[in-house]
Amino acid sequence: MAADTARVMSGEVKTESVSLSPLGAAAAPEQELLCIFGTGDLGRSLGQRLLHTGYRVVYGSRRPHSCGPLPQGAQVLSHAAAAQSASLVFICVHREHYDFLETLAPQLKGKVLVDVSNNLRKNLYPEANAEYLQRLIPGASVVKAFNTLSAWGLQNGPSDANRQVFLCGDSAEAKQAVAELATRLGFSVLDRGSLSAARELEDFPLQLFPQWRLPLCLAMGLAAFFFFYVLIGDVVHTYVKQGKDNSFRIMVSLANKVFPIVSLIMLSLCYLPGVLASFLQLYRGTKYRRFPDWLDRWMLCRKQLGLVALGFAFLHVLYTLIIPIRYKVNTLNSNYIVVVTRIKENKTAVFDTTLAWRTDSYYSVGILGFGLYILLGITSLPSVSNALSWREFSFIQSKLGYLTLFFCTLHTYLYGWDKFLRSSYYKWWTPPAHMLSLVVPSVVLLLKLLLLLPCVDRRVTRIRQGWERTEPREENNKPLIS
Amino acid sequence: MAADTARVMSGEVKTESVSLSPLGAAAAPEQELLCIFGTGDLGRSLGQRLLHTGYRVVYGSRRPHSCGPLPQGAQVLSHAAAAQSASLVFICVHREHYDFLETLAPQLKGKVLVDVSNNLRKNLYPEANAEYLQRLIPGASVVKAFNTLSAWGLQNGPSDANRQVFLCGDSAEAKQAVAELATRLGFSVLDRGSLSAARELEDFPLQLFPQWRLPLCLAMGLAAFFFFYVLIGDVVHTYVKQGKDNSFRIMVSLANKVFPIVSLIMLSLCYLPGVLASFLQLYRGTKYRRFPDWLDRWMLCRKQLGLVALGFAFLHVLYTLIIPIRYKVNTLNSNYIVVVTRIKENKTAVFDTTLAWRTDSYYSVGILGFGLYILLGITSLPSVSNALSWREFSFIQSKLGYLTLFFCTLHTYLYGWDKFLRSSYYKWWTPPAHMLSLVVPSVVLLLKLLLLLPCVDRRVTRIRQGWERTEPREENNKPLIS
Amino acid sequence: MAADTARVMSGEVKTESVSLSPLGAAAAPEQELLCIFGTGDLGRSLGQRLLHTGYRVVYGSRRPHSCGPLPQGAQVLSHAAAAQSASLVFICVHREHYDFLETLAPQLKGKVLVDVSNNLRKNLYPEANAEYLQRLIPGASVVKAFNTLSAWGLQNGPSDANRQVFLCGDSAEAKQAVAELATRLGFSVLDRGSLSAARELEDFPLQLFPQWRLPLCLAMGLAAFFFFYVLIGDVVHTYVKQGKDNSFRIMVSLANKVFPIVSLIMLSLCYLPGVLASFLQLYRGTKYRRFPDWLDRWMLCRKQLGLVALGFAFLHVLYTLIIPIRYKVNTLNSNYIVVVTRIKENKTAVFDTTLAWRTDSYYSVGILGFGLYILLGITSLPSVSNALSWREFSFIQSKLGYLTLFFCTLHTYLYGWDKFLRSSYYKWWTPPAHMLSLVVPSVVLLLKLLLLLPCVDRRVTRIRQGWERTEPREENNKPLIS
Repeated sequence: MAADTARVMSGEVKTESVSLSPLGAAAAPEQELLCIFGTGDLGRSLGQRLLHTGYRVVYGSRRPHSCGPLPQGAQVLSHAAAAQSASLVFICVHREHYDFLETLAPQLKGKVLVDVSNNLRKNLYPEANAEYLQRLIPGASVVKAFNTLSAWGLQNGPSDANRQVFLCGDSAEAKQAVAELATRLGFSVLDRGSLSAARELEDFPLQLFPQWRLPLCLAMGLAAFFFFYVLIGDVVHTYVKQGKDNSFRIMVSLANKVFPIVSLIMLSLCYLPGVLASFLQLYRGTKYRRFPDWLDRWMLCRKQLGLVALGFAFLHVLYTLIIPIRYKVNTLNSNYIVVVTRIKENKTAVFDTTLAWRTDSYYSVGILGFGLYILLGITSLPSVSNALSWREFSFIQSKLGYLTLFFCTLHTYLYGWDKFLRSSYYKWWTPPAHMLSLVVPSVVLLLKLLLLLPCVDRRVTRIRQGWERTEPREENNKPLIS
Repeated sequence: MAADTARVMSGEVKTESVSLSPLGAAAAPEQELLCIFGTGDLGRSLGQRLLHTGYRVVYGSRRPHSCGPLPQGAQVLSHAAAAQSASLVFICVHREHYDFLETLAPQLKGKVLVDVSNNLRKNLYPEANAEYLQRLIPGASVVKAFNTLSAWGLQNGPSDANRQVFLCGDSAEAKQAVAELATRLGFSVLDRGSLSAARELEDFPLQLFPQWRLPLCLAMGLAAFFFFYVLIGDVVHTYVKQGKDNSFRIMVSLANKVFPIVSLIMLSLCYLPGVLASFLQLYRGTKYRRFPDWLDRWMLCRKQLGLVALGFAFLHVLYTLIIPIRYKVNTLNSNYIVVVTRIKENKTAVFDTTLAWRTDSYYSVGILGFGLYILLGITSLPSVSNALSWREFSFIQSKLGYLTLFFCTLHTYLYGWDKFLRSSYYKWWTPPAHMLSLVVPSVVLLLKLLLLLPCVDRRVTRIRQGWERTEPREENNKPLIS
Repeated sequence: MAADTARVMSGEVKTESVSLSPLGAAAAPEQELLCIFGTGDLGRSLGQRLLHTGYRVVYGSRRPHSCGPLPQGAQVLSHAAAAQSASLVFICVHREHYDFLETLAPQLKGKVLVDVSNNLRKNLYPEANAEYLQRLIPGASVVKAFNTLSAWGLQNGPSDANRQVFLCGDSAEAKQAVAELATRLGFSVLDRGSLSAARELEDFPLQLFPQWRLPLCLAMGLAAFFFFYVLIGDVVHTYVKQGKDNSFRIMVSLANKVFPIVSLIMLSLCYLPGVLASFLQLYRGTKYRRFPDWLDRWMLCRKQLGLVALGFAFLHVLYTLIIPIRYKVNTLNSNYIVVVTRIKENKTAVFDTTLAWRTDSYYSVGILGFGLYILLGITSLPSVSNALSWREFSFIQSKLGYLTLFFCTLHTYLYGWDKFLRSSYYKWWTPPAHMLSLVVPSVVLLLKLLLLLPCVDRRVTRIRQGWERTEPREENNKPLIS
């Protein structure tokens, strides 16, 4: 809350100091007049910004003589008078009050109306605000714009997430006029098409990482499950059987068991839907049929699944690297007790070359997998993926992606090694957590291997190129994705 | 210097090899004729590039027959003749020589003049070069463009920092013509509005990280202060009191004390102005009054403060992770002397569970804080923040930002633990450095907590929504941000 | 393969769920009619996408009554009839079949033809497909567009690497029409100039990291050479001379010798061409002569060289940080045997302050070098380098770049220290690998230092500013870069 307040202030910042934004109120040569309906907070912010950029501003108000403080230099008139004086009108009024605009239809005819409104939640009304406005005043050209900016962004010009103005509308000329205006205010403009896109634009500011919700929930669920699983196996079991308090292991050891498990499972879940879809197409013998909804949704959040998995992998790396500076390790394991015991028993440490090979390979494969993973993450950055050709992007995200999954799975197998043979690892008859984590990635890699068999691969390629199997059980002439 | 020279050469590179740049001098269908005034280095580079892209080029020169080597294929005429032959003229002349253009006003009437000039330093002249040019030749349409590119960029087309062409001007048609030209040369164009933005564009190539200066100076100052502080406490104190030479600790141990301290203080300084501003608004009872200048400037460099702090945090992480491979650690601390001493004294190492909990929490909280920090850094990348909605950006930068600050402060408190009780840590009656570093973040978090109290939060929210307290001591009808 | 298949599926995804893409088939107000020639896979995908966005679609087909399943809502006519009904025709036909279009020249006159075709490999035909099409039908306005998208991208709208539509053509109006269409489909448009750029656009989807090939090959070559070099020195030599099996060292120790060497050499190779070019210019006394081809190519891949080197440096850091948790280290080196031996021999460990200084400096310099390196990498991201002014980019990439090279070279020198004096490091009379790795960076830094000498620097600066030495051996009036 107060953090947002911080933004509020930054809204009060003098625009002159914002880098590269057009300035000089007096300098703009043609002092174009713009009209703003509504003298609320939004109207004021917008008016102030327009005045700073060198426009003249006239407000339309129900009570032109008592509408509170307005930006210095702005005129206030009645709605009708204000509308007639300018060719472009910003509607900074809540949707509930739109109906009064209907009476102004004659004055607004031929004008460009910029709808900047947003709603408090989705699907509050049957149609988008901008479409409703267009229906009320059919003679005007409604353009939806600026609604994705924060009020402070409108007042102060572009910065970080306040740089892009999306607009849509049915009149190309009206959109052009608004686009030029936004450009002069320092924003970059993205045309989103006809007015039917207004609903989307109105929903945009309401959403909070819609595509990240599922992957994050999944990650939380997996993390919680595996945390309790290893908690019972490592801490509770030790306490019950040996009466030893191992609880301090929660902070680092258990976390470092849970994170790689979640990361590996999430990574394989990122590749599973593609494999499933291939098999579905093989079974159906065509690519011209829609996938089930759950598969669609799953495939649309693969990027997010992968990035969440990368986050967990990153934590796993850091948790692993601090192991040697932990108090517990320095005190318990290596140095003191072991050495003293060995010296007392006069034992000689035997160097096990196989063990050296295994552990070194385990680390090496893990590092290479993590390196590839970082590479996948970097190519997911919008500016990087835009610079890649489709073939390059697909090469990295699929070929290198499967290689990453292979390395990470191998890393876990090398970690497990022959532990699955030793009964001491099965606490209360449950397998150790890392074994459970291997199930999904192993299945994905196996299915993928099947798909790479020449005969299967040939069939998939043909289907992808539009070939269809015409067996009796397939009904012909079915509608396409409708 | 010679590094720039490297760029010089890359300027000589054949344009054909630049990916996706238009090629084929002969292939362009309409061989449009363009005029360049000035046969200096810039004029030559530009002409060469234009010829390569398929334009015809005519140079305007005072001495058309002795103006030195020009790109092959270009014509040279007198200024007047050259101006008349083309509808677009590049002015590649130093501003000091602009006055001769006044005599060409009749020939330049109705032409598009592209001002590509830059000055050697800011505020050299009372008005921007392009505005001066427009004043000299009112009948022409002056467009400021291409000045943010390096000469080599003009000659060779787009690459990295040489991709965007900013332009401004008062005539939309003239800007359109220049924008099309720049696009054909392979650049991407950003319209910066009317000619009054020319000054900004002319200052742009002169600036060297203007927004980073304050944060970097601050970081340097803090680092220097704390370096000497810990130097005195750790090295000088030890030398004076025990006669031991600890100076080798400078390279890693002291650095690793200074870096996290600077990082934590910078991070908290990044959130302090927002909190201060909230309290200022609460005190004033309105958001419609400007903040003091120092607060404005402070708030404008918060992003840079945060990123510099992230850099120091990154170094702190690496310096911490190499601890166990340091010679000193392997020799002195853990293994040999300790073990031998203990064995000789027949002491048993007692495992301290509280200590294990504390140190493990300390590492764990630090890692989580660092992970969140990296996330904040990634969302600061321009392409990522552009892809976020305002609400998402604000959620990450404020909610997650305060969480990061909380984790990092907790990390430091866990590091300190009960050291503040033990007198041995107070060298020469000064507190250890990490205690000093906790002051600012603790204050920021405390103030933030106050702002989160329901009654305060409600008030702040109302002020943000435009509400104003109208008490007698507030003068009414005061001017807005003027 | 099957990974691509995953993409195939995502092609089947309902477009409604794609964020911010225009939707609502029925909602678009003007139901513009577009024509598609070709009912193959590409034609179908495109038609489906157009229908979804609210256009009406008519297909032109040789056999209008038997052309297989088409998207619901599309009409099918003969080629001639279809062409006449719309003003914009997509040519979704393979280039081999273009000749039939010649017969339709009368119907296609004045139409906008969008060539979306690609070839299977480069230089298959003497002229670009789009230019061939333009030659066949001179009366139409051919625009090359959409060919850089995957078929799935055409069907489903923008996502990651499928967001940018490059277009080129000779008619500005035709390009404008196609640009608006692409914008409405949700893509962002980049105009690449006249139709002569078509070949480039047609080659774009065929290329797989063309600029990365040389740096990657170089890295592979260097890595292979140094791997065998250290394999012989460390493993084979030990086995032959002492009969000890050291082979487990391959996985971590040898890798961690090879990676930093490759990284350092690649980094210095990234700065060598610039230095060479400066000396070439000094020798020639002019900047107006082209560099040899190999130098041009080398300079064009400096960014890629640097990024590959950064990748190896990253692996080196991780391989170094896991050293203390390796089994071998914990067993062999530090703890057990050493301690026991020392205790038995009653030796006292002597703390060597010089050694402590040296090793700590070695780590410290390495970390700072790596930090700067990461900074260089971040500023190479397209969105970051676009936000920098040319002067800033050049400052970071050259000034900080040389500083990085200096730190990394110093790091290696500190690692080597006096090893070059001890004969035990010369296995079979060959120098240790790290000495070899120092040759190139030392040469680069030395040459750079020479260029920084005031007298040399002055001369280079003058040459860069266009000055030319006019000695008798230089032929005058030679053509410029022609």
